[in-house]
Amino acid sequence: MLDKAPNQKLSALLENFGQALAAGDIDKAVSLFQEDCYWRDLVAFTWNIRTMEGRDQIRAMLESQLPGTKPANWAIAESEDATETDGVIEGWITFETDVARGFGHIRVKEGKIWTLLTTMAELKGHEEPIGYARPLGAKHGSGKNRKSWKEERDEEAAELGFSRQPYCVVIGGGQGGIALGARLKQLGVSTIIVEKNERAGDSWRKRYKSLCLHDPVWYDHLPYIDFPRNWPVFSPKDKIGDWLEMYAKVMELNYWTSTEAKSATYDEEKKEWNVVVRRDGKDIVLRPKQLVLATGMSGRPNMPQFRGMERFKGDQHHSSKHPGPDAYAGKKAVVIGSNNSAHDIAAALWEAGADVTMVQRSSTHIVRSDTLMEIGMGALYSEQAVENGISTAKADMIFASIPYRILHEFQIPLYQQMKERDAEFYGGLEKAGFMLDWGDDNSGLFMKYLRRGSGYYIDVGASQLIIDGSIKLKSGSQVEEITEKSVVLEDGTELPADLIVYATGYGSMNGWAAELISQEVADKVGKCWGLGSATTKDPGPWEGEQRNMWKPTQQEALWFHGGNLHQSRHYSQFLALQLKARQEGIPTPVYGMQEVHHLR
Amino acid sequence: MLDKAPNQKLSALLENFGQALAAGDIDKAVSLFQEDCYWRDLVAFTWNIRTMEGRDQIRAMLESQLPGTKPANWAIAESEDATETDGVIEGWITFETDVARGFGHIRVKEGKIWTLLTTMAELKGHEEPIGYARPLGAKHGSGKNRKSWKEERDEEAAELGFSRQPYCVVIGGGQGGIALGARLKQLGVSTIIVEKNERAGDSWRKRYKSLCLHDPVWYDHLPYIDFPRNWPVFSPKDKIGDWLEMYAKVMELNYWTSTEAKSATYDEEKKEWNVVVRRDGKDIVLRPKQLVLATGMSGRPNMPQFRGMERFKGDQHHSSKHPGPDAYAGKKAVVIGSNNSAHDIAAALWEAGADVTMVQRSSTHIVRSDTLMEIGMGALYSEQAVENGISTAKADMIFASIPYRILHEFQIPLYQQMKERDAEFYGGLEKAGFMLDWGDDNSGLFMKYLRRGSGYYIDVGASQLIIDGSIKLKSGSQVEEITEKSVVLEDGTELPADLIVYATGYGSMNGWAAELISQEVADKVGKCWGLGSATTKDPGPWEGEQRNMWKPTQQEALWFHGGNLHQSRHYSQFLALQLKARQEGIPTPVYGMQEVHHLR
Repeated sequence: MLDKAPNQKLSALLENFGQALAAGDIDKAVSLFQEDCYWRDLVAFTWNIRTMEGRDQIRAMLESQLPGTKPANWAIAESEDATETDGVIEGWITFETDVARGFGHIRVKEGKIWTLLTTMAELKGHEEPIGYARPLGAKHGSGKNRKSWKEERDEEAAELGFSRQPYCVVIGGGQGGIALGARLKQLGVSTIIVEKNERAGDSWRKRYKSLCLHDPVWYDHLPYIDFPRNWPVFSPKDKIGDWLEMYAKVMELNYWTSTEAKSATYDEEKKEWNVVVRRDGKDIVLRPKQLVLATGMSGRPNMPQFRGMERFKGDQHHSSKHPGPDAYAGKKAVVIGSNNSAHDIAAALWEAGADVTMVQRSSTHIVRSDTLMEIGMGALYSEQAVENGISTAKADMIFASIPYRILHEFQIPLYQQMKERDAEFYGGLEKAGFMLDWGDDNSGLFMKYLRRGSGYYIDVGASQLIIDGSIKLKSGSQVEEITEKSVVLEDGTELPADLIVYATGYGSMNGWAAELISQEVADKVGKCWGLGSATTKDPGPWEGEQRNMWKPTQQEALWFHGGNLHQSRHYSQFLALQLKARQEGIPTPVYGMQEVHHLR
Repeated sequence: MLDKAPNQKLSALLENFGQALAAGDIDKAVSLFQEDCYWRDLVAFTWNIRTMEGRDQIRAMLESQLPGTKPANWAIAESEDATETDGVIEGWITFETDVARGFGHIRVKEGKIWTLLTTMAELKGHEEPIGYARPLGAKHGSGKNRKSWKEERDEEAAELGFSRQPYCVVIGGGQGGIALGARLKQLGVSTIIVEKNERAGDSWRKRYKSLCLHDPVWYDHLPYIDFPRNWPVFSPKDKIGDWLEMYAKVMELNYWTSTEAKSATYDEEKKEWNVVVRRDGKDIVLRPKQLVLATGMSGRPNMPQFRGMERFKGDQHHSSKHPGPDAYAGKKAVVIGSNNSAHDIAAALWEAGADVTMVQRSSTHIVRSDTLMEIGMGALYSEQAVENGISTAKADMIFASIPYRILHEFQIPLYQQMKERDAEFYGGLEKAGFMLDWGDDNSGLFMKYLRRGSGYYIDVGASQLIIDGSIKLKSGSQVEEITEKSVVLEDGTELPADLIVYATGYGSMNGWAAELISQEVADKVGKCWGLGSATTKDPGPWEGEQRNMWKPTQQEALWFHGGNLHQSRHYSQFLALQLKARQEGIPTPVYGMQEVHHLR
C-alpha cells in the first residue's frame, strides 16, 4: 500500500508556499526554505537558466521577479505521488505563472524546501498542437482551389528566406539544431536551419568509421519521436545520421543543406540579424530576429602549434578531420592526445593494421562503458529505468533537479564504486604507464563533461589495447617538435610517423561567434560552457549554470545551443520557449544575466 | 477500489482449463466453454488464422492440435486485472505452447468461456532483439579489421539477391510490405521487398493530390515506431509517403525500389520460387523459399467495358490512374462510381473548377468522418482511448477478440446511433437523389470493409457538395455507352464529358497471382478477402475469416498480405511468425486449411 502521508505533507507545504507567493509575502516564502537550499529555475521565473543558492539569493530573485510572474496553483502533479526516503520528501509539482504553465520537482527536509526546480512547460495561449490538439491533416468540407499539404510545404520552402523572413535562424543542423528546430516548428516559430553538409546527419556520417555514440539509447531520444525498442544501445554513427535525416524530414523542418553561414551582423536599430549564407553557389541574406549558434558544444578545433609541423611529410590533421584508418594499414601512426577521440582513433588504426603510438600529455579519466551504464546512468537512463516508470522526460527532470553546486557530492560515491569494481582494470592501465585521474575532486565523468567537456575516455575496448601494448603509449612527456617523419618528445624520444593525428580538443563555442560575427561580439559574450568550478580548465568564479548555454547572452538576440543528445533534447524546450515568447511580444524580463569572466 | 473478485474467478477458470488441456482431457476442456462459444486462434494452436465456432469445432480442433501444441501456464497477463461488466468477465491472458509464448483475451459468461482469443506472441528461442535484448550497436573490445555497421549494411545490400538468396521475397512495398518487412527483419528472416516505384511511399504520393488517410492516426501506427503526438489525425498522402520512406530506411529493410516483379514460378522439387524482377534495366532471378504478395488489398483495377469507350476523345482512366484535378479546370468531368475514390476525386475536381457529374449506379453507404471517429472508433482508437490506457496494441487485440460471426451484432447499434445523429444530413442526400444503404444487415462500414472492401464513402465534405448540387448527381441508371464526347445512360441522359473517371473499384488480390504466377495458381488459391457472409459481393458459404489473408493458401509457400494500416500492423505479426517458424524448421501443422469456393 502506497504511503499517502508524504502527499499530505507536501500538499500542505505547497499550499503555504503558494499563499505566501500570491500574497507577495517574500519573507514567509523564503522562510519555507531550509537554510541550505537551492531553487533552480528554467525560464519560468527568471526568463533565464539560473540556480538561486541559499535564502538570500532566493529572496533577491523573488523581489525582482515575483510581481511580474504571478505564480499560482501550486500542486502535486496529476497522478503522481510524493515519496519519502531517509527523511526527504520528493515530489513532482505543477504551477502556473501569469503567462505559462510550469512543471517542477521538489525535495523537502524537516518540513522545509531543500531543492526546488521550476521549469516552463508551455506558454498559455501558445500550447503545442499535440495530442488532443493535433492538426486534423485532412481538410474536411470543401472550398475552391484549396492547397494540399504538399503544396503548402512546397510554398513555405519557396518563400521562407526569400519573400518571407524566418523569425529565427539556427546555424548548424546536427542534433542540437534539429531538436531545437523541431520544438520551434511545433511552436509556430518560423525557422531556417543552416547546415554546411549535403545531408542531415552528415556531421555524424563523416566522422571515423568505428564511431558509435558513447551514450546509451535511453539518454539519446530526440523530442517527440523516441528511438524504437529495437534501436541499439550505442548507435553507430551512420545509423544515427540516418535517424537525424529522417527526423528533420518528418518533422517538416526548413533545413537548408549544403549551405554555409559566411557572416552575421546585428542591426541594432532594426533589431534583426543580417546573416549571409552561401547556398547552391549563391549568397543569400537572411534577416531573422534571433540567431542561434548550434554548431556543437565543441568550438573550433584546437590545432596545436608545434615547432616543425610545416615540414612533416606524412599526413597530419586534427582528429575532427581524420578520415578513418583504411589508408593507414602497415603505416606508423602517432596520436597526440588521450581523450575519447584519441582512444577511438588509435583503436581503429590498430584494428586496420597500423602501428599506433598514443602520446599522453596529461592525465585522463577513464571509465568502462558497462560500468558507467550500470552505476552512472542505470537509475535514470536504462531499460530498467523505463520498466520502473522513469520515462526519459522524467529522468531529464530528475537530473535537472540536482543543483550543480552539490551535484559532485552525488557523483563522488558512484565513481568510488566504479573504481573498486574495476580495480584490476585500472591497475593494468597504471602498469602500462597510463596517467589516470578521476577529476579534481574525484567526481568523475559527468562533472568533467559539465565543467570542461573533455578530459575523459569512456572505454569500449581501447584501454585493453593499451594495457596489452597493442597500442603503444608514451606518457608524461610533451611534444618538442615535429620533424619530416617523426614526432620528437621533450624527453628525447623520437616516434617515427607516417600519420599524426592531433586529438587535441576544441575551443569554446564563442569561437564560432568570432568567426561568424566578430571577435568583438565573441568577447562581449565570453566563454561558453563550464560552471566556474575552479577546477582544471573550468576557472572560477562560481557561476552555477553552464556559461551562455540555452539562455540570454550579453549579445542581444544571440543564443548558443549544443551538447549531447540529452542536452539537445532537454534544453531545446527552454530555448524554444524563450524564443517563442519574444516572437509573441510576451515580456521576458531576464533575471541574473550572467557576467563575463573569461573570454575563451 | 478495484474489484479483485473477477481476477479470482478468472484465475480459477484458467487453472481448470489449463489442467484439462495438460491432461489431454478434451471433454473437460470443451465443457468449460458456453454452448454458444468462439475460439479465435491466430497461429498459436492452428498455425492458421481460424475461428472455431461452438463446442464441436473447438473439440475437433483440439483433437487435431492439442497433442502437438502442449499448451501450459495459462494465467492472467502480468499487471492486468480482469473486469466484470453486465455479467461478462473479461481479461488479458498469457500462455505458452511447446514452441511459443502466447497472448490472448477471454470473455466469460456464467462461469464458462464465451469468447477466447489466442495469439502467438513470440517463438521460444527466437525472441526479437528488443528492449533488454536490443543489440549493443557499438562493438566493444577490439579486433583486427572489424566491419562497421555501415560496412555490414552495404555488404548485405550487395550480396542479398545475388550471392546470397533471401528466405522471403515480398512483392509490393506499400504499408503492407513495409510493416511485414520490419517484422521479418526483427526476426532475422532475410527478405527483399520489391517495389516498382522510385521511392518508398510513392504508392501514396502518386495518387490524387487531395488524398488523406480516411482512418485516424491512432489506427494507423506501424510496428515499433508510433507516429509522434503531433501527427495529424488524417495523414495527407505525401506525409504518409515520407513516413513510410523513412521507416523503411531506419528499420534497415532491404527495399528494392524501381524494381518490377515480372514472373514467379514455384519449383516443387527444390521447394523454392523463381521470381524474375527487373531492376535498373536488368532481369534478376530471386530464389526465395517464401513469396508474399503485398500488392494491396485491392487487386487489379476493375476497368469496365462500355460500348464506345474506344472512340472517346477526351481523357478517360480508372480512378487509380487519375492524375488529380489540375488539368481540368473549366472542363466537364463525369465520375462513374460513388464510393470513396469517386467522392474524393469528384470533390477535388469541383474544387479545381471543373463541372462534375457523379454517376451512381448502385446504393452507397455513407458515414461522416467525425461521426465514424466518435461512435465507430473512439472507444479503441482515439486520443481518449490512449488516455484510458488502451494502447494501439491492446485496441488491436480487443478488435481481434470479437469473432467475425457476431461482429455485426456489435456494429449494428453503433450505426443506428450514427443514423440518428446525422438524420438531417442523410435527409439532404436522399433529397438530392442519392441512393443510401447501411449494408445488407445495417451493420455499416467495418463489416462492408471486411466482407467486400468496398461500397462506402467516409464523408469528409463531398456529400455536402452533392446535397447542394455543386457536384451533379445522376443516380439509378446504368451506363449505356460512351460517345466521342459524352457518357450516355440507359435512361437516355447524355452527359457531355471532357474527362471520364472510372471509379469502378478493384478485383480480388488473387488477380495479382494470375498476373505474376499463372491463372492456374490464382484459381488454385481462389478469391482473397471477404468472410463468406452471403451478403452483397461476399458470397457464402461462411468461412469465418478473411479468405487467404495472412495465412497458408492452397499454393504452398505463397502468402497474401494487405489491408489498411491497422491490418498491415496487426497481421504482419502473425504472418512473420509463420514465416519464421518455417525458416527455422519448426513443425507448423496447419489446422483447418480453407477450401476454395470462389475463384475471384
